[in-house]
Amino acid sequence: MTVTLSRTQRRFVLPESDLPTHYYNIAADLPVPLPPPLHPATREPIGPEALAPLFPMALIAQEVSTERAIEIPEEVREAYRIYRPSPLHRALGLEKLLDTPARIYFKNEGVSPAGSHKPNTAIAQAYYNREAGVTKLVTETGAGQWGSALSFACSLFGLEAKVFMVKVSFEQKPYRRSFIQSFGATVVPSPSDETNAGRAILAADPDSSGSLGIAISEAIEVAATREDTNYSLGSVLNHVLLHQTVIGEEAILQMEMAGDKPDVVIGCAGGGSNFAGIAFPFMRERLQGRADTRFVAVEPASCPSLTRGEYRYDFGDTAGTTPLLKMHTLGNDFRPAPIHAGGLRYHGMAPMVSHLYELGLLEAKAYEQNACFDAAIQFTRSEGLIPAPESSHAIRAAIDEALDAREAGEERVILFNLSGHGFFDMAAYDAYLAGGLTDVGYDSGQPPA
Amino acid sequence: MTVTLSRTQRRFVLPESDLPTHYYNIAADLPVPLPPPLHPATREPIGPEALAPLFPMALIAQEVSTERAIEIPEEVREAYRIYRPSPLHRALGLEKLLDTPARIYFKNEGVSPAGSHKPNTAIAQAYYNREAGVTKLVTETGAGQWGSALSFACSLFGLEAKVFMVKVSFEQKPYRRSFIQSFGATVVPSPSDETNAGRAILAADPDSSGSLGIAISEAIEVAATREDTNYSLGSVLNHVLLHQTVIGEEAILQMEMAGDKPDVVIGCAGGGSNFAGIAFPFMRERLQGRADTRFVAVEPASCPSLTRGEYRYDFGDTAGTTPLLKMHTLGNDFRPAPIHAGGLRYHGMAPMVSHLYELGLLEAKAYEQNACFDAAIQFTRSEGLIPAPESSHAIRAAIDEALDAREAGEERVILFNLSGHGFFDMAAYDAYLAGGLTDVGYDSGQPPA
Repeated sequence: MTVTLSRTQRRFVLPESDLPTHYYNIAADLPVPLPPPLHPATREPIGPEALAPLFPMALIAQEVSTERAIEIPEEVREAYRIYRPSPLHRALGLEKLLDTPARIYFKNEGVSPAGSHKPNTAIAQAYYNREAGVTKLVTETGAGQWGSALSFACSLFGLEAKVFMVKVSFEQKPYRRSFIQSFGATVVPSPSDETNAGRAILAADPDSSGSLGIAISEAIEVAATREDTNYSLGSVLNHVLLHQTVIGEEAILQMEMAGDKPDVVIGCAGGGSNFAGIAFPFMRERLQGRADTRFVAVEPASCPSLTRGEYRYDFGDTAGTTPLLKMHTLGNDFRPAPIHAGGLRYHGMAPMVSHLYELGLLEAKAYEQNACFDAAIQFTRSEGLIPAPESSHAIRAAIDEALDAREAGEERVILFNLSGHGFFDMAAYDAYLAGGLTDVGYDSGQPPA
Repeated sequence: MTVTLSRTQRRFVLPESDLPTHYYNIAADLPVPLPPPLHPATREPIGPEALAPLFPMALIAQEVSTERAIEIPEEVREAYRIYRPSPLHRALGLEKLLDTPARIYFKNEGVSPAGSHKPNTAIAQAYYNREAGVTKLVTETGAGQWGSALSFACSLFGLEAKVFMVKVSFEQKPYRRSFIQSFGATVVPSPSDETNAGRAILAADPDSSGSLGIAISEAIEVAATREDTNYSLGSVLNHVLLHQTVIGEEAILQMEMAGDKPDVVIGCAGGGSNFAGIAFPFMRERLQGRADTRFVAVEPASCPSLTRGEYRYDFGDTAGTTPLLKMHTLGNDFRPAPIHAGGLRYHGMAPMVSHLYELGLLEAKAYEQNACFDAAIQFTRSEGLIPAPESSHAIRAAIDEALDAREAGEERVILFNLSGHGFFDMAAYDAYLAGGLTDVGYDSGQPPA
């Protein structure tokens, strides 16, 4: 490169007028259609009515749509404008640190009010529910990111929000709890005595510290039994991934501003929504024959659904109350080790991401957490941003691509999604800096009995 | 207003090319010059040499300069571009909530890596020190904001950083400590056994929980006694306020984008630097006769240096080791009550802000903390952002202006500085939401003996 550091643009910001007007629905461009969800008893494809007790019809329609471009309602765009378009950064400091000929870019979703990409779908879900006359949304949260996003979105649209928070997180993460409460939401430690599911658990084990599976069961029970209340999910489903495509649509324009095209697009993958959000719009270019971009989904070694799971029909929740979804899964009763990247501790992968993996459109990698925190600290000290432990997986993969490019002497263009900041995860950094993290691996999880 | 909510622009973002090229030095436009700092023994004005053991000559020159525009070095601008220009927001949600004809804007300094305006000066100070051959900076931190900013800046410029952190904060705020450590800085609980000052305190009281005054004494001692080490201060001094004027320079361009001119500019004021940063460039317009903007500095009722302090020469630190500064002061041994807005707990006000107050160019207001947290929660739920407790003072004043405008039926244009986010202050929100804050007042502080 002949340009000097100081003459190179560092952030690419779009005007509000470039906020996307449509979500991109990758279902329109699939060479093979996505296998449908099945009823657990009949194993027949389920119809929209099966989801109607939980979701408004507009979201159910998006879940099964094959329309390529789905218009974003004006009120949703208005709310997005609180933090979108989000910036795209050129990681000049990291490039210098790695002494690589690669050019590294990242999309910064940490600028949202909740500190991650989650509000992109929370806002849309709150809007469509309010339009359908729903007055209350109920959900579960583990690490707290999704509960934060939904409580923020509900406060904007005048909905009540109730969040079942896994009891151990409720007790260990009081700041995430008070963050959610600051937006006016009710937070209930799960298991609770507010539902049959919770009461049954408490009867058997009054000291239960809860699990995401139990919290989901409680939230679904409340939504299914109350007319004015719906359920809301933060990842996995098609409509959730759809809402996240605003990330990639903006990034395409910003990469054009930068005069570069990504050779590889990277995202961490738990349920799959932030990966889908950055990747799908770029994948459209590849599916339509205009680019040969590579895509890399990065997961924790301790919860490796894509790299070690089976591709088969499985339940979305632990209790087995959801329809069956065709996905890469470690088994719906797999209990991943308690790594710090709580948002990546999900037994399955989004059906759409799983399907594209089977079609050979993306690669998958798994890393241990110390390797990810090493990368996070390199990033922090060269770029000034403390990433969420989840996002550190994408950073690890991006750094490895950049080191590989140095080895090969290639000017590789790398784009990754910084899904969130780590300001609520300092306890994890504290443990890492004190040398206290262990690499737990897949086998440390508790596989299905 | 005839425009609907959804057609009104919500954020005003500047391209990198609009990043300020110069700091604005208000000393050039003063009708009466600023009273100089005095030597405590002779009470004669001190010369630059008195500050040379602590600061590089470039910063000392800025401290006494009367040049109107001071060029920002290219490397400093390169570092600013990690997060600057920062966005200006129209608070449409808050306006709607308050049902006011006022138009409310705020500048968002919470987007910086440290989460506040502090890096604007930390970056400049790290740069000038590195240029002067200094390899290590030492400072103190109370709540942790300044330590975070300086450690970030030092990591960018390859300097070592040592932060004396008040011991009670070190123990109560482990996340701010690990945030600082993530950037590679050394954090030492103060009082420590690394300095004479610290050892003396510990000899008298081995269980001392420390104070900002003690931490300053330790940091100054280290800097004064080591050739390769300088001291760095995060507020109060002229050169610190100067560096913050990038906030107001950007805001002027952004208000032009919005097609509005502020009738009133508001900032919270502890040492005075974020208030100066947003206010001084707009004050230039008033000093030069082109505008009649009002300016409001907002302080906590428990530490009311402008509204209740005396205007006289006083020490900048508790131990009385600094030159004498002419400022509004509660007395250098005043110990403010432990309110949550730790960044506003300073006994004095920046000499430049104090001088302008005496000249009648700004108003001052003081609020109790419950009133500020009430305002913060209204802001959070309507705008989606959780403010720092310090910034909530500016929000309280902005809301009161907007309510006053509603009463008067006026289309008042209000601009305030959101000096930082509150992600590290959730314990304070937790206490507030649980009804646990007390309004402590001035008299609860411990005035000079």
